[in-house]
Amino acid sequence: MLFHSLQPLLKRNQDHSFSSVSLHCHDVNSLLRKLGADLSVIQDSILIGCSDRGHAHFCLDLAAVDAAAVEEESGGKFVDLRKSYFLLSESKAPLVAKSQALLRWHQTHRFCSCSGKLTQRNRAGSHRFTAGTQNYSYPQMSPVVIALVHDGTRCLLGRQASFPPGLYSALAGFCDMGESVEESVRREVAEEAGLEVLSVTYSSSQHWPFPNSSFMIGCFAAVSPAHSQLSVDRSELEDARWFDLEQIERGLSVRTPPRRGAPAVTWFPPKHAIGHRLISEWAELQRRHMTSR
Amino acid sequence: MLFHSLQPLLKRNQDHSFSSVSLHCHDVNSLLRKLGADLSVIQDSILIGCSDRGHAHFCLDLAAVDAAAVEEESGGKFVDLRKSYFLLSESKAPLVAKSQALLRWHQTHRFCSCSGKLTQRNRAGSHRFTAGTQNYSYPQMSPVVIALVHDGTRCLLGRQASFPPGLYSALAGFCDMGESVEESVRREVAEEAGLEVLSVTYSSSQHWPFPNSSFMIGCFAAVSPAHSQLSVDRSELEDARWFDLEQIERGLSVRTPPRRGAPAVTWFPPKHAIGHRLISEWAELQRRHMTSR
Repeated sequence: MLFHSLQPLLKRNQDHSFSSVSLHCHDVNSLLRKLGADLSVIQDSILIGCSDRGHAHFCLDLAAVDAAAVEEESGGKFVDLRKSYFLLSESKAPLVAKSQALLRWHQTHRFCSCSGKLTQRNRAGSHRFTAGTQNYSYPQMSPVVIALVHDGTRCLLGRQASFPPGLYSALAGFCDMGESVEESVRREVAEEAGLEVLSVTYSSSQHWPFPNSSFMIGCFAAVSPAHSQLSVDRSELEDARWFDLEQIERGLSVRTPPRRGAPAVTWFPPKHAIGHRLISEWAELQRRHMTSR
Repeated sequence: MLFHSLQPLLKRNQDHSFSSVSLHCHDVNSLLRKLGADLSVIQDSILIGCSDRGHAHFCLDLAAVDAAAVEEESGGKFVDLRKSYFLLSESKAPLVAKSQALLRWHQTHRFCSCSGKLTQRNRAGSHRFTAGTQNYSYPQMSPVVIALVHDGTRCLLGRQASFPPGLYSALAGFCDMGESVEESVRREVAEEAGLEVLSVTYSSSQHWPFPNSSFMIGCFAAVSPAHSQLSVDRSELEDARWFDLEQIERGLSVRTPPRRGAPAVTWFPPKHAIGHRLISEWAELQRRHMTSR
């Protein structure tokens, strides 16, 4: 799987879907040879896993080679990782994300944080070490809680100023050292929305490459409908508000990011994102609950 | 809260329980003055939180000062962190653990992993940064799954060769980059015990300072009683075996680590550890299940 400055190389399939460009090692070799590039760059490849048939898969960042030339030779295009999340199918996105996260980790851990000395990678790229010491470092993910707050009939979504226009998602924040999942959720919801969480229920989890490899732990957080008055921390969130089932279903029906200049619309994270899963799960539970009444 | 080379200073209370020694800033000042130590070391204190009354709490490592002299002046004793887990009450242990983890993180992140340059801490000690760059680094915890495998009537516990004699706990392992909680549990249980997990249920989570600040995510992992034949990976585990409720209850009744030379006995992690909580929860469910039959 090829990258350029951490952007994955994607190609458009005949059915107009997108996938990552997977090349055999000897194809990468001929590609580099054609472009007159240094073949030793292949040694920077990182093992990302094995197929069911036992074939080893690697990723490689070709930042040292001209991007346009690689695109022309391969028939693919280097795409911003966030954008690729809207182009790739649910089965393809996680491996691209993992690959980019591993490449990024190696690029940002060339030095030992203990000694400041240069580190070396092991052959597979699963860790780095400082020669002559016992200092090993492993690719790290930072635990983050993402909580869908609900009060029985509505759920709470917010948006950061950096989000694209109209995008809302569940509240999220890094776990502080020393905290449990439940403590992080209670603190984040109190800080960002001024609400007291009564109970926390785990839903699912996910590796997320932004901003820097997070380990997203998705939860539902119940608050009392009698105490649902929001007090939004505007330094953290541009907006946060309650959504009822109808508004959520309208948002879920928006499949792709609205085009620039199109009328304002509320939409949610892409299908592969745990934020999407939490919102869909809540809507499903809410529908069932309303039918059973 | 004072430490020496990452060992917390504990004192024995009148009721023979132990707590960490908490000194006011001016008491630390006079202590250092008495010992003829450099007072500027106080600036290395790290903010660990606020009391309900709004008092700021800090931790400080006095590695530069003679340990025995501090012990004599304060009436306390510097104790290995693992040992302190058996001495401290359930309410005191987490803050000592968090403090030690923060101190350790600062000590091992004096250099920027991107550039190899020296980093500086901010005043509170909540992060470090590289002067003149946008490189910030925050104290990190590594996600680890700890899974109590059960087959309906028995649960599976294992021991690493490094554990004290007779100690058994739930299976645990680091989450690989790209994995979810459920994927990590399935992989770890397959790798370490050769079992296929049918379902994973989240129980609770916990910060754990060993070996290097882990974010422990505790789960129950169900396997089929028809496929419970173990195939233990001896490079990872010294032993792993099935325990029935009676054996678990016997282990839970051992309150303190058996003394050296005492007869061999099976025992479990201390009360503050998530391993203990998982085992107790399983025993409780099992008892209820047996009563209801």
